[in-house]
Amino acid sequence: MIVDNALYRKGVRVPVDGDGASLGDARVPCASGDFQWIGIHDPTPAELKQIATTFGLHPLAVEDAGDSHQRPKVERYGDTLFLVLKTLWYIDEEDAVETGEINLFVGPDFVVTVRHGEGIDLATSRRDLEHRAKVLQHGPMAVMYAICDRVVDEYERVGAALEIDVDEVEESVFSPARSDDSVRIYALKREIAEVRRAVMPLREPMRRFAAGQLEGIDEQTATYFRDVADHLHRVSEVVDNLDTLLSTAFDAHLARISVQQNDDMRKISAGAAIVVVPTMIAGIYGMNFDHMPELHWKYGYGFAWALMIGTALSLVALFKKSGWL
Amino acid sequence: MIVDNALYRKGVRVPVDGDGASLGDARVPCASGDFQWIGIHDPTPAELKQIATTFGLHPLAVEDAGDSHQRPKVERYGDTLFLVLKTLWYIDEEDAVETGEINLFVGPDFVVTVRHGEGIDLATSRRDLEHRAKVLQHGPMAVMYAICDRVVDEYERVGAALEIDVDEVEESVFSPARSDDSVRIYALKREIAEVRRAVMPLREPMRRFAAGQLEGIDEQTATYFRDVADHLHRVSEVVDNLDTLLSTAFDAHLARISVQQNDDMRKISAGAAIVVVPTMIAGIYGMNFDHMPELHWKYGYGFAWALMIGTALSLVALFKKSGWL
Amino acid sequence: MIVDNALYRKGVRVPVDGDGASLGDARVPCASGDFQWIGIHDPTPAELKQIATTFGLHPLAVEDAGDSHQRPKVERYGDTLFLVLKTLWYIDEEDAVETGEINLFVGPDFVVTVRHGEGIDLATSRRDLEHRAKVLQHGPMAVMYAICDRVVDEYERVGAALEIDVDEVEESVFSPARSDDSVRIYALKREIAEVRRAVMPLREPMRRFAAGQLEGIDEQTATYFRDVADHLHRVSEVVDNLDTLLSTAFDAHLARISVQQNDDMRKISAGAAIVVVPTMIAGIYGMNFDHMPELHWKYGYGFAWALMIGTALSLVALFKKSGWL
Amino acid sequence: MIVDNALYRKGVRVPVDGDGASLGDARVPCASGDFQWIGIHDPTPAELKQIATTFGLHPLAVEDAGDSHQRPKVERYGDTLFLVLKTLWYIDEEDAVETGEINLFVGPDFVVTVRHGEGIDLATSRRDLEHRAKVLQHGPMAVMYAICDRVVDEYERVGAALEIDVDEVEESVFSPARSDDSVRIYALKREIAEVRRAVMPLREPMRRFAAGQLEGIDEQTATYFRDVADHLHRVSEVVDNLDTLLSTAFDAHLARISVQQNDDMRKISAGAAIVVVPTMIAGIYGMNFDHMPELHWKYGYGFAWALMIGTALSLVALFKKSGWL
Amino acid sequence: MIVDNALYRKGVRVPVDGDGASLGDARVPCASGDFQWIGIHDPTPAELKQIATTFGLHPLAVEDAGDSHQRPKVERYGDTLFLVLKTLWYIDEEDAVETGEINLFVGPDFVVTVRHGEGIDLATSRRDLEHRAKVLQHGPMAVMYAICDRVVDEYERVGAALEIDVDEVEESVFSPARSDDSVRIYALKREIAEVRRAVMPLREPMRRFAAGQLEGIDEQTATYFRDVADHLHRVSEVVDNLDTLLSTAFDAHLARISVQQNDDMRKISAGAAIVVVPTMIAGIYGMNFDHMPELHWKYGYGFAWALMIGTALSLVALFKKSGWL
Repeated sequence: MIVDNALYRKGVRVPVDGDGASLGDARVPCASGDFQWIGIHDPTPAELKQIATTFGLHPLAVEDAGDSHQRPKVERYGDTLFLVLKTLWYIDEEDAVETGEINLFVGPDFVVTVRHGEGIDLATSRRDLEHRAKVLQHGPMAVMYAICDRVVDEYERVGAALEIDVDEVEESVFSPARSDDSVRIYALKREIAEVRRAVMPLREPMRRFAAGQLEGIDEQTATYFRDVADHLHRVSEVVDNLDTLLSTAFDAHLARISVQQNDDMRKISAGAAIVVVPTMIAGIYGMNFDHMPELHWKYGYGFAWALMIGTALSLVALFKKSGWL
Repeated sequence: MIVDNALYRKGVRVPVDGDGASLGDARVPCASGDFQWIGIHDPTPAELKQIATTFGLHPLAVEDAGDSHQRPKVERYGDTLFLVLKTLWYIDEEDAVETGEINLFVGPDFVVTVRHGEGIDLATSRRDLEHRAKVLQHGPMAVMYAICDRVVDEYERVGAALEIDVDEVEESVFSPARSDDSVRIYALKREIAEVRRAVMPLREPMRRFAAGQLEGIDEQTATYFRDVADHLHRVSEVVDNLDTLLSTAFDAHLARISVQQNDDMRKISAGAAIVVVPTMIAGIYGMNFDHMPELHWKYGYGFAWALMIGTALSLVALFKKSGWL
Repeated sequence: MIVDNALYRKGVRVPVDGDGASLGDARVPCASGDFQWIGIHDPTPAELKQIATTFGLHPLAVEDAGDSHQRPKVERYGDTLFLVLKTLWYIDEEDAVETGEINLFVGPDFVVTVRHGEGIDLATSRRDLEHRAKVLQHGPMAVMYAICDRVVDEYERVGAALEIDVDEVEESVFSPARSDDSVRIYALKREIAEVRRAVMPLREPMRRFAAGQLEGIDEQTATYFRDVADHLHRVSEVVDNLDTLLSTAFDAHLARISVQQNDDMRKISAGAAIVVVPTMIAGIYGMNFDHMPELHWKYGYGFAWALMIGTALSLVALFKKSGWL
Repeated sequence: MIVDNALYRKGVRVPVDGDGASLGDARVPCASGDFQWIGIHDPTPAELKQIATTFGLHPLAVEDAGDSHQRPKVERYGDTLFLVLKTLWYIDEEDAVETGEINLFVGPDFVVTVRHGEGIDLATSRRDLEHRAKVLQHGPMAVMYAICDRVVDEYERVGAALEIDVDEVEESVFSPARSDDSVRIYALKREIAEVRRAVMPLREPMRRFAAGQLEGIDEQTATYFRDVADHLHRVSEVVDNLDTLLSTAFDAHLARISVQQNDDMRKISAGAAIVVVPTMIAGIYGMNFDHMPELHWKYGYGFAWALMIGTALSLVALFKKSGWL
Repeated sequence: MIVDNALYRKGVRVPVDGDGASLGDARVPCASGDFQWIGIHDPTPAELKQIATTFGLHPLAVEDAGDSHQRPKVERYGDTLFLVLKTLWYIDEEDAVETGEINLFVGPDFVVTVRHGEGIDLATSRRDLEHRAKVLQHGPMAVMYAICDRVVDEYERVGAALEIDVDEVEESVFSPARSDDSVRIYALKREIAEVRRAVMPLREPMRRFAAGQLEGIDEQTATYFRDVADHLHRVSEVVDNLDTLLSTAFDAHLARISVQQNDDMRKISAGAAIVVVPTMIAGIYGMNFDHMPELHWKYGYGFAWALMIGTALSLVALFKKSGWL
């Protein structure tokens, strides 16, 4: 499905005839310096094939663009650059990170963006960019920059959300309440791995774009990509840091369980002692010897109670003092 | 045993005289641009020797080809390339990864494929390739590509199967049921190591093929190998990710055991208390003091029962409230 | 807010007219070899914009300078160098490391320093530098050196404070007292991670400055930066070492908990035995057989007591000897 | 002690006069293309000195050759190559890896091999090589290849033996029998470390020999060394894999201990319950109330037994069902 | 304090006038090819300053030389090389590694050695070197070699001492005796970290010296440094190996604690059973039923004893058989 299709001349959107045309007729003739940007969402294989024919895209790249389980990468086919970006966004209700995919074909005078799944909306990126004629003037590379910037911004938001999650886990681990944090830690580690799989493969190509080691990227565009690369670097640092923090938190969780078990064991033992010692006393006065003077005392029974309660209370005091209760 | 033997001219299979000939006569005269592809399965040393003489292969490479415990590698002997590939496939019934081996000798006008063990069938690769004349035109390198592609596709299938296995383990670890997941995790880690041993050594040569850094690989073939390298990269990422997930799952498993032991200990202690306290009461009324008024009450016995049951029920309530039962 | 603003000629501060002027008029005309150093603290976006216009700074760098959550980095925009430094200082009362940020714009004839948050005071650096005319003569690079030196010195102080903290943790872990060191270890690991995030990204640029691989750094200034790079290296080593020490200490902590639990269990069991065995004896003499000679002995009851106390004492002796008590 | 001393001409052994001569006279005049190979075993310092003088070896290399605790290395002294190889062999009876050392001095027309300790016998290598005139023709480098090949072959045998040991440990860890596998795992890890110390330092020089980056190694000899390098690579992979397997097995061992402890605890608790509940019942009927109707029933005693046995059996059934017994 | 001061000409010590002179006059005029070696121990800042002026040393290097907490490094200031070496030695009585520091200033015709702390004595190095005129002839670089060699030799001695310590720990961990090895392992890990901090930073500069990549190092001196680099490499391998061994030993220690706890728990439970079962029997015969035939038997009491002792003995036998006792 075509989401939007426009021609840009000197950084300004030019009205295009037949905006709602079929994919086969989507190509707009470009004068020198112009470029076309067409956005597609969840295309069928047939639609992709039409687009491929219209813009002369390489079959292998088109095959990849039809599959939403690619790893992020940048590949060059002739004078067309093919970019696969993983989009990430955070669903607050589920404390979960969701992933989508954006494919970009960046030619000398066109950009084709193919988006899979929900999540990041390219329409806002396009609108933003259309208000920044100065950036848009740099042609297709400006579009590539705008989309990368948008995607990486979302990465940073995801990173920030995960930081809050890790803070929560941390608090839970060190709170006196007993909680089974291992499920939560595991889930977070899985999500961090997902973020890393989206972020890491992009770092090298962004670095290369930032260094201007790519035909078609002038120095000023390179500066923009340096900004993207820098943000990407920040995300990857945040995520690495969270990962090691979680590992440490997990170890602390283990130590905590052991300490709690120890505390429980001592509490239990103290409790047992308080019952077992009076039982022994009762047992003694339950013996059947002929000559047991205490049994015939007038206050013998009271004495036995006093003894039992007394030892029990002494034990309570003793255990309280030694921290077992 | 010769499995198949054919001559290819401009991407088309040419009928060969004496198709069922012995290995010593297997060589077919090739015109310029033609090439011969002969497939052998589980050859005897004698057969290998014949093939070596017929195609002028290097003794060290032939020695390696006769041994099915090679590590994956790519070596050049004069103008012949020698490739060792590990084939992997997943046996559903046993949740196990099996390994085989394919050796390729790729000369200027011939390809000799030597397959050890069961598993991946090269006949289908050959048939597929024969239907893609455009690819087959690129000569022996196209055959090499087709086989690598087939092998790596199978890697991806194995990776996907292992992902399901890991999901199962994960579920089992975090399910409330007690299960000894360490055996399963260990077995999976062993299999992941096996996959990694097949995948990792291939990454560097495939990258080199993809970059066209090999005589005989033109730009278009390089593009194909880039696809293979990309898939290989994806498999290795999947497998690395699974490995770290399993390690984390293992840690969680350990934490789970500790937590369960703690729960058990508390449950046991609570149970013990419910028995031990009435025993103490019974002991008290089993004492033999002369003056124990309760003993002579009419409802003394009932009172004792009430006391015992009452304390027991109070303890149950208490432990339920504090989560010990 | 402008903190200080001065012109330096041949290493000497030159009185500037309108020292308290607004940011828009802050630029002072520089003769060849002179340079201006203006220091700003917690600027508003509007102030930053004025400064940017006055000194012709790149919008992306200025945007970064307004945000106090940058990662340390060095970037070149035309002939201006943009430096982001994390400042660290140690708060004794809270055993905590605090972070701030300093941004530097180093042009051919000006230095703009933008400081966020509290902590390190650049006024003292400026005063120190003004007393070292020989260093100050090297121009803006000397200011950059002085600030880096100051910041890194503070890193070393933080490192030393953390070393003391780790020593305390270590002592606590190995002391016979029971202490829950996991919270402390976790907190320290978090702070070490923070230090590392400040230190690590600076190492590569400082190494480059030290090697003189930067326009505007002459050999002598390079020597100064070598000193900074060396200190940075030392801090990072200290911090890495502390991190691994903490990990080892944590493992030891875990082992300690286990050993203590074991000790407790044995102590508890010994205690239980001392009560349970007399109870058994009492039970025996509480049996109702017609013919139990001991019951009719004159000193039967005394004998029972002797037996009970005797076995209890023997058990105490036995457990003491075997180290259980 | 001289073990063997011979002159080789065009790949054929030439009878040498005074074969049993003293070390001082051991040098044989070599025509162009000839080379001498002298083998020494456990030389005294004096013998080494004589050899050094005779063949003009560098004092530092000779010093190293006298010490059997060198690390594997390749060094060049003028036109002589000095090689230190660790020999490894596996003693089945002790499940242990033993180490020896071979030093090689490879000059333009001589090879001096100095062997320390038992283990690998170079006599067989020499005999094998003397039957392969084609290889021997390549001169001293062929001898170096033959010895490296022999040593690395032995590494592979050791690797295979360790694989069996690890399989045994694995079986023991996962068998239901209780076994203290930590000693065995530790011992194996120590041996694997020893193998690694022999293997790892050789990889880089062998790679260089295989790439022909050494004066005196022609292309064909390089091919032979490629084979050695490949085997070395395989051993190192095997050994790395075993190491990580052992780590995982160790973790599984730990989990197993915990699970077993848990099982024991539950079994013990169940057993205790079966004794404690009847004790409570007995206690109840041991109370001395005046009015306890059950005591006067005709079958009261039988009823008590029935109650005790009944509850005990119910408990057994309950615990069996819940898997505690 | 000046420890020694001498002039060397063609490898021979030349008597110097005013050997006991003050530091300010310490410089001796050198003819071409001569060089002066002055050794200082624990200098005051003033002494250092004098030396700096006398030999024209760089202020930053001198500042470092005054501080005994430098990390090992090699720096070039003009034509003077500045070396910081950490000295290590092992104190048998305390099982501890001590550290000191040696700073070297190596100029074209002088060597200034500044030693901090106790430990390695340079006087013996000087005496040894003075007996090796052939080495000493190579000038200041020979002195640098001699000192590095001496320091690294001491590293190897420390490494060997630590190996013995690790062997002891290992024995203690696997001995049946209960020992709290975590303290010892932690202490050893700390010391190994200290050795590593001394050794690691030297490896790269020594490698460079060994490769002759330093002005003033001729090929023969390079050969000497290759020896030093080789020893350094060996130490670092030893130390790395010990570190991983200790980690494995620690894990084994943890497993051991768990196994022992399990053994204890079973022993305790068995012991408890032996007491609790007779108690139950006693309880039964303490019941007050009217009709309990056993109570009226002549040998009823004896029967009860037999029953109690019999069950106790059976339990002992049972537990012995199943390995619980």
